[in-house]
Amino acid sequence: MNGKHLGKGSTNPPLPKGKLRLYSMRFCPYAQRVHLVLDAKKIPHDIVNIKLSDKPDWYFQRNPLGKVPAIETESEDAIYESLIIADYLDEKYPQRPLHPKDPMQKAKDRILVEHFSKISTSIYTYLRDGDDSFDPILTGLDLFEKELTLRATQFFGGDVPGMLDYMIWPWIERIDSYKIVAPEKFVIPKDRYKKLSEWKKAMKEDEAVKVTYIEPEFHAQFVNSFKAGNANYDILVK
Amino acid sequence: MNGKHLGKGSTNPPLPKGKLRLYSMRFCPYAQRVHLVLDAKKIPHDIVNIKLSDKPDWYFQRNPLGKVPAIETESEDAIYESLIIADYLDEKYPQRPLHPKDPMQKAKDRILVEHFSKISTSIYTYLRDGDDSFDPILTGLDLFEKELTLRATQFFGGDVPGMLDYMIWPWIERIDSYKIVAPEKFVIPKDRYKKLSEWKKAMKEDEAVKVTYIEPEFHAQFVNSFKAGNANYDILVK
Repeated sequence: MNGKHLGKGSTNPPLPKGKLRLYSMRFCPYAQRVHLVLDAKKIPHDIVNIKLSDKPDWYFQRNPLGKVPAIETESEDAIYESLIIADYLDEKYPQRPLHPKDPMQKAKDRILVEHFSKISTSIYTYLRDGDDSFDPILTGLDLFEKELTLRATQFFGGDVPGMLDYMIWPWIERIDSYKIVAPEKFVIPKDRYKKLSEWKKAMKEDEAVKVTYIEPEFHAQFVNSFKAGNANYDILVK
Repeated sequence: MNGKHLGKGSTNPPLPKGKLRLYSMRFCPYAQRVHLVLDAKKIPHDIVNIKLSDKPDWYFQRNPLGKVPAIETESEDAIYESLIIADYLDEKYPQRPLHPKDPMQKAKDRILVEHFSKISTSIYTYLRDGDDSFDPILTGLDLFEKELTLRATQFFGGDVPGMLDYMIWPWIERIDSYKIVAPEKFVIPKDRYKKLSEWKKAMKEDEAVKVTYIEPEFHAQFVNSFKAGNANYDILVK
């Protein structure tokens, strides 16, 4: 999990027999989505972290676009795109289904994930450029607050987190770090997101979430190193 | 199918009992994706065309973002996003499954659809701005030529078109119209896409494709009206 990120000049560790491999980057929210699915469904896997600023040549042989996250097995080429990997894992490994059984509910949850993508993109643009308004981000989160209130369950998925919960979690986990990175810009009105706050607290107690959870201080440290043009992927390497 | 596009001041035709409704726009490639799935699977539905430049107020009540395509039934709110609707229909209506049964093959096909999105976006940018290079579009299509060669089947889906075929078809149907709209800019090297040309010919004979097929001249007429700032949605209305 917290292994060193491999860059140019490294060699690809041999793929363990019969195991799935995840190519990841420890601070990548898209990669975290796949971690969450693997951990929630308890799918045996190994992890190889990739130094994104200096990708090893061997990585492009497995994965021509060099993207992270990607998964591969002995018998199959790498596949990428976090949502497609997540859906694949949920179909291939039937234990603890994460998508709702009802196709209509599943479609609605997937639409919410699409909505959330706009929020997460806005967060990055806002943090980087800062000239956009913060309002679209807050309005976007309102939709999720409303949705949780309507569902009247602890998680979007019901009594336990489901696919929607895990697909949006990585950005919510990072919210407190944005407050550290840009305290003057990232001001969330108190009491506007009561349900989401409770949800966030409950998510932090989830077993799968705990596996990859990173404290806001470390997320902030990574973001600052990234902004300084010298991304420190190995902050958590012991 | 070729009904008048409803704008402000119109009324929403009552939803027929037990039938699915598709809100569409006759020249929208995303909407066409949903048409193709409905027609390939022979799912009974009615169609309401929306005048996108002057959306009726009632449309926002059903579909707050006012997006097309959207589907709805008596018992369910509208859902939108062409790929999510397509997946929903394939899950909900088991006749003639369009996605590959194998989850890995399904994931690979979905990744190819994502790749294709980049090509279709590039086509629009290129036609509109024209200052980008045409090369990324050709290189993008190379991937699909190579893929068809590897698969050695008539369609991406095998002996009959599958989800991947239908999800990319609307833009291929329009390729000849781009040659009319911008003959000097849209030059495709002869013989570079032999397999894709055969595929295109075979797709045009497909029963579902025939239902919504529009001749290049009419596509071009629409694009030109759109570029002139006066989109003529009703070209095909008799």
